[in-house]
Amino acid sequence: MLHKSRGLFVVFNQLKFDKHLKLSERTGSDKDAAALLKTAELLGFETEEYLDLERKQIRRKLYELSEMDHGDHDCFACAILTHGGKDNILYSHDDEMKLKDFTTPFEADKCRSLASKPKLFFVQACRGDLLDRGAKVIHLKQSTGDVLDRNPSKVESYTIPVQADFLISQATAPDYYAWRSSDKGSIFIQTLCSVFERYSDEMDIMKILTRVNRVVAFNFESWTQRPDMNHMKQIPSITSQLTAELFIKKPKRNTNPST
Amino acid sequence: MLHKSRGLFVVFNQLKFDKHLKLSERTGSDKDAAALLKTAELLGFETEEYLDLERKQIRRKLYELSEMDHGDHDCFACAILTHGGKDNILYSHDDEMKLKDFTTPFEADKCRSLASKPKLFFVQACRGDLLDRGAKVIHLKQSTGDVLDRNPSKVESYTIPVQADFLISQATAPDYYAWRSSDKGSIFIQTLCSVFERYSDEMDIMKILTRVNRVVAFNFESWTQRPDMNHMKQIPSITSQLTAELFIKKPKRNTNPST
Repeated sequence: MLHKSRGLFVVFNQLKFDKHLKLSERTGSDKDAAALLKTAELLGFETEEYLDLERKQIRRKLYELSEMDHGDHDCFACAILTHGGKDNILYSHDDEMKLKDFTTPFEADKCRSLASKPKLFFVQACRGDLLDRGAKVIHLKQSTGDVLDRNPSKVESYTIPVQADFLISQATAPDYYAWRSSDKGSIFIQTLCSVFERYSDEMDIMKILTRVNRVVAFNFESWTQRPDMNHMKQIPSITSQLTAELFIKKPKRNTNPST
Repeated sequence: MLHKSRGLFVVFNQLKFDKHLKLSERTGSDKDAAALLKTAELLGFETEEYLDLERKQIRRKLYELSEMDHGDHDCFACAILTHGGKDNILYSHDDEMKLKDFTTPFEADKCRSLASKPKLFFVQACRGDLLDRGAKVIHLKQSTGDVLDRNPSKVESYTIPVQADFLISQATAPDYYAWRSSDKGSIFIQTLCSVFERYSDEMDIMKILTRVNRVVAFNFESWTQRPDMNHMKQIPSITSQLTAELFIKKPKRNTNPST
């Protein structure tokens, strides 16, 4: 993370959907988008938000993003807030898309200026309609310890897998429901933002996301008028093809003469 | 990791397949199984290997494993070495199975004695027939830093998502080919074992698996007589629903009077 700038954090916020899809308005998603933009800016990202784009518009935007020069950027990040379904289906305003539609344009052979740089995707969407009723547990003890990193040696030229350096952080496990409050936004995005803001200076991203897993798994329980949907649990899922530990620390402010 | 024993490490080693499946013998898989058993024992696991089981036999074995009492165990681990395909298909000796067939029996509501304990799955299998031709990269700089953990507070009783505490470590990215040498075993399993043996005392499992990603991504390139399959790259994939950092350190030997 030693480039001129942190890079872009793009938010695709899908609030309303074309009638033929018969999908409800995602109330509360504005809260999620606002939290993400705030956190991303705090972490030094340049942010962009796109509201209710159609499939064609999203594909064009992704193409533009993958064609631009990220040479001076540390990394690229993208959040997708929408309805979803099994097998990583994600809905644009007017049509079904796949998570892969969002990630493929940034593979190392297609987006050269992001090759070997982290490409981060955060997805708030259902992945099916399974509900996690949870299991009661008595007692917990966990081992911890201190960890010291080493400097990886610098290399000059090499070939990497085009699929390397992706991180996909999803609100919920495959086939499961992801919860969202109309008032407060989703438990996943809100927790993600607060954990990032609190721990980004001391923890790498896997540790941060594991912390998000724990907070959501332990603290969240659905609260709804429908008894069949009440008291449900949720566990986020991290998929990493990163090749190095990743710290995204808050940039020191230039305006502060003491730093 | 403070229980009486580390727990079980079960290896399903699928070398040969029923003729009707038209799948080649997985030469070199014996090397992978041997490396896994050695590493698992070094890390304090009790090991079991099952060779060329049929679908019914695997399901029965998984049922037995999920029904047994893991109360005194830190965790549970399982390696699956076989042919595979898109959408997490894994082959038993006589039939197609899904990765989910292996994990579901250990969900927190089905296997109570493993609830809130890490459930680790290591999968050496193709996930499709895509080949990663790689992308050339010039220069690399990575930021690192020191990390300090905190003790999570103990809790007495709580409800967790049944999907929590799973870690799935896969040889390759979705839809991609996973490479194996007939002489030396697979690049993924061999790297996994050597990184675990080298770093288990100082790194948590996410850091270890990220290191495995890096070693495979940077150092491996396929070498085969077929020009269309030559010089291909591979990147492993980590999927974590863990709720805490996990260290699996080598147990101190009781036979050594100085420890």
